[in-house]
Amino acid sequence: MIIQSDQMQNVLYNLFVKYQFSEEKAELLARVFTKNTLDGVNSHGINRVPLFINYVETGLIKVDAEAEKVETFGSIERWDGHFGPGIINAAKCTNRAIELAKLHGMGMVALRNTNHWMRGGSYGWQAAEAGCISIFFTNTQPNMPAWGGKESRIGNNPFIVSIPREEGHVVLDMAISQFSFGKIHEYKLKDKKLPFLGGWDDNDKLTDDPEKILSNERGLPIGYWKGSALSMILDMLATLLSAGDSTYKIGLRERETGVSQVFLCIYPEIFHDRDVSEKLLNEIIDFTHDVNPMHPGDKTYYPGERTLQNRERNLENGIPVNEEVWQKVMKLLV
Amino acid sequence: MIIQSDQMQNVLYNLFVKYQFSEEKAELLARVFTKNTLDGVNSHGINRVPLFINYVETGLIKVDAEAEKVETFGSIERWDGHFGPGIINAAKCTNRAIELAKLHGMGMVALRNTNHWMRGGSYGWQAAEAGCISIFFTNTQPNMPAWGGKESRIGNNPFIVSIPREEGHVVLDMAISQFSFGKIHEYKLKDKKLPFLGGWDDNDKLTDDPEKILSNERGLPIGYWKGSALSMILDMLATLLSAGDSTYKIGLRERETGVSQVFLCIYPEIFHDRDVSEKLLNEIIDFTHDVNPMHPGDKTYYPGERTLQNRERNLENGIPVNEEVWQKVMKLLV
Repeated sequence: MIIQSDQMQNVLYNLFVKYQFSEEKAELLARVFTKNTLDGVNSHGINRVPLFINYVETGLIKVDAEAEKVETFGSIERWDGHFGPGIINAAKCTNRAIELAKLHGMGMVALRNTNHWMRGGSYGWQAAEAGCISIFFTNTQPNMPAWGGKESRIGNNPFIVSIPREEGHVVLDMAISQFSFGKIHEYKLKDKKLPFLGGWDDNDKLTDDPEKILSNERGLPIGYWKGSALSMILDMLATLLSAGDSTYKIGLRERETGVSQVFLCIYPEIFHDRDVSEKLLNEIIDFTHDVNPMHPGDKTYYPGERTLQNRERNLENGIPVNEEVWQKVMKLLV
Repeated sequence: MIIQSDQMQNVLYNLFVKYQFSEEKAELLARVFTKNTLDGVNSHGINRVPLFINYVETGLIKVDAEAEKVETFGSIERWDGHFGPGIINAAKCTNRAIELAKLHGMGMVALRNTNHWMRGGSYGWQAAEAGCISIFFTNTQPNMPAWGGKESRIGNNPFIVSIPREEGHVVLDMAISQFSFGKIHEYKLKDKKLPFLGGWDDNDKLTDDPEKILSNERGLPIGYWKGSALSMILDMLATLLSAGDSTYKIGLRERETGVSQVFLCIYPEIFHDRDVSEKLLNEIIDFTHDVNPMHPGDKTYYPGERTLQNRERNLENGIPVNEEVWQKVMKLLV
C-alpha cells in the first residue's frame, strides 16, 4: 500500500504521544522514522516501529531519559544516553558535534548507554544539512564471527561518512556485514540465493543460501578478515571514547540495548573554499559516473545518490509500505 | 636470505645519503623502510627501495622538499608536501597531528602533493607510541572499478586506525581492495588460486584466478559495492580537506604521485581513565580470542597482533629478505 509522508508522520506523532513521549520528542521520533521510510529504508523506518514500542513497553527504552554531558575536554565530549530512545540521543549528539565543529573546526561526541539509532545515515544527512562533514559509528550486539572464530562475537557496527554538497549530499551508510539479516530474509522470502557469500552454514562453510545463514545468524563481514578487524576496532573506539559498553557487554544482555556511539564532525567552511570543494567533489563523481558499465544496464552511484532518488520518488508518489506493518502500527494507536 | 635489522638500516642510511638526502632524512627513511620489513611488510619495506630510488632519480620525489603548513584553523591544519618523500611527509604530519591532539584533545592534518607513504600502518604505530588514537587514510591512483563501472576509477585507498595499548597497540592497516596486486602476484607465482574472488577477468567476470586479474589490473573492493562507496568517500575526504588531488587527477599522471592524505589523532589521556580503557580493550580482545575456532587450527587476532609477532620473530632471528631484492639494493649503493 501507499502512505503519504505527512500522513505517516502524523500517525507516528500521535502514537508516540500516546506512549508518553513529550510533544517535542514525539515530533522528532515521528519525523526520523518517517524520513527513514521516505528514503526507502523501511527496515529502520516504519517496519521497526512495533519493535520500538515493544522496547518502550518493556522499559528497555526509557521514555523520559535525557542524554547528558558527563565529561568534556575542548572539542571532545562524553555523553551518557541513560537508555533513552536511540534516535533522540543520536540526533542530540549529532547537533552537539555540529556545534563543536562550528566552534573549533572539528568536534566529537562519544555517547554511551544509548539505544539503536535506527538508520545511522539519518544523522549523516543531518550533519551534511548543517554544512558539516561527519564520521559516525555505533557498536551493536554480536552478530558475526570474528575471522577464524566460530561463534558470533563481533557486531556489524554501522559506519557513516557524510560530506555536504550543493547538488546532493554524499552520505555513506554502511554496516560492516556483507548483508543485513533483514536483506538475507528478503532473499529467503523470494526463494533466491544471495548474489555473493553472506554468512556461515551449520557445517561452518561460507554460503550464499539465505536459509542456511538465518538458521544460526552468523553473518559475514565485508572483506572477510578485513571487515572483521574493522568491526573490532570500531567497537574498541566507541567503547573507549565513551567509556561505554562493548559488543561483548551488549551481548551479555538478553536484548540489544546500551550501545556506544561516536559522532565526529568537521566544519569544512573554516577553509573558505566551498567553490573549490564543490568542484573537487563533482570531479570525483563525474569521473566515476562517466564510465562504461561493467555489464549492460549497470550504473555507478555516489554514496547517497540512490537515497535521494528514493526520497524524490516517494515524495511524489507516496511511500510503499507493507500493509501488515501498517495495520500493526494502526492497532498500536487505538 | 636473512638480514639483521641494524644491518639493513645501516645499508639504507648510506644509500639515502648517497642519493643526497640530509643525514636526518636518510636516518628517518632508513628507519621506516627497515621497520616495515622487520614487521613483515617487505612489499612496502626493502622490496620497494629500488622503485623509491627510481622515483628520486627521475625527480618524481623531490629530495629537498619540505612539507609546509598552508592553512590553519584551531586543531585543523592543511599542509603541502611539495612532492617530497611520502615517508618523511607522513611522519611529519603524524607528529603534527599528535601535537595538535595533545593540545586540543583532537588534531587533524590534511596533506596534499605528497607521495606514497609506503606502509600506512607505520604512522598508526607512531601515533599509538605517542599515546594517541589515530584515523589516517590516503588516496591512490585508480586501481579498481567503481561498482557497476568497467574501468578502474577508484583507488584502494589504505585506511589506518590505531589505539594505544600497554600490552601491544591495536593497529588496523587495511587497503580497501580485497587483495593487493602484490598479494595476487604471489598467488600467481605459486600457481595457486586466490582463496576468494579478487578482481575482474577480461570477460568482466569476477574471478579468483590471479593471472586473469593481473592481465588488466581491475581489483575488487572489500564488500563489493560497499568498499567501492567507502573508497570513493575516503578519496573525497582526502581531496576536500587537503584541497589536493583526487584519484581522478592522480590517474591523469603517468605514475602515481601527488596523493592526498588525512591524519586525525585523538589523545585519550584527556579523560584520565587509562586503566579503564586498558580493561575495556582487553575485554574486547579476550572475548574475540577466547572462542572455538571456525576450523581446526584457526585463530582470531586483534588488528596489529600479527605485526607484533612478526617483529618479535624477526628481531630474534633476523629478517627474511629476497636475495635478488637485496642484491639490487646493494648495487644501488656502489
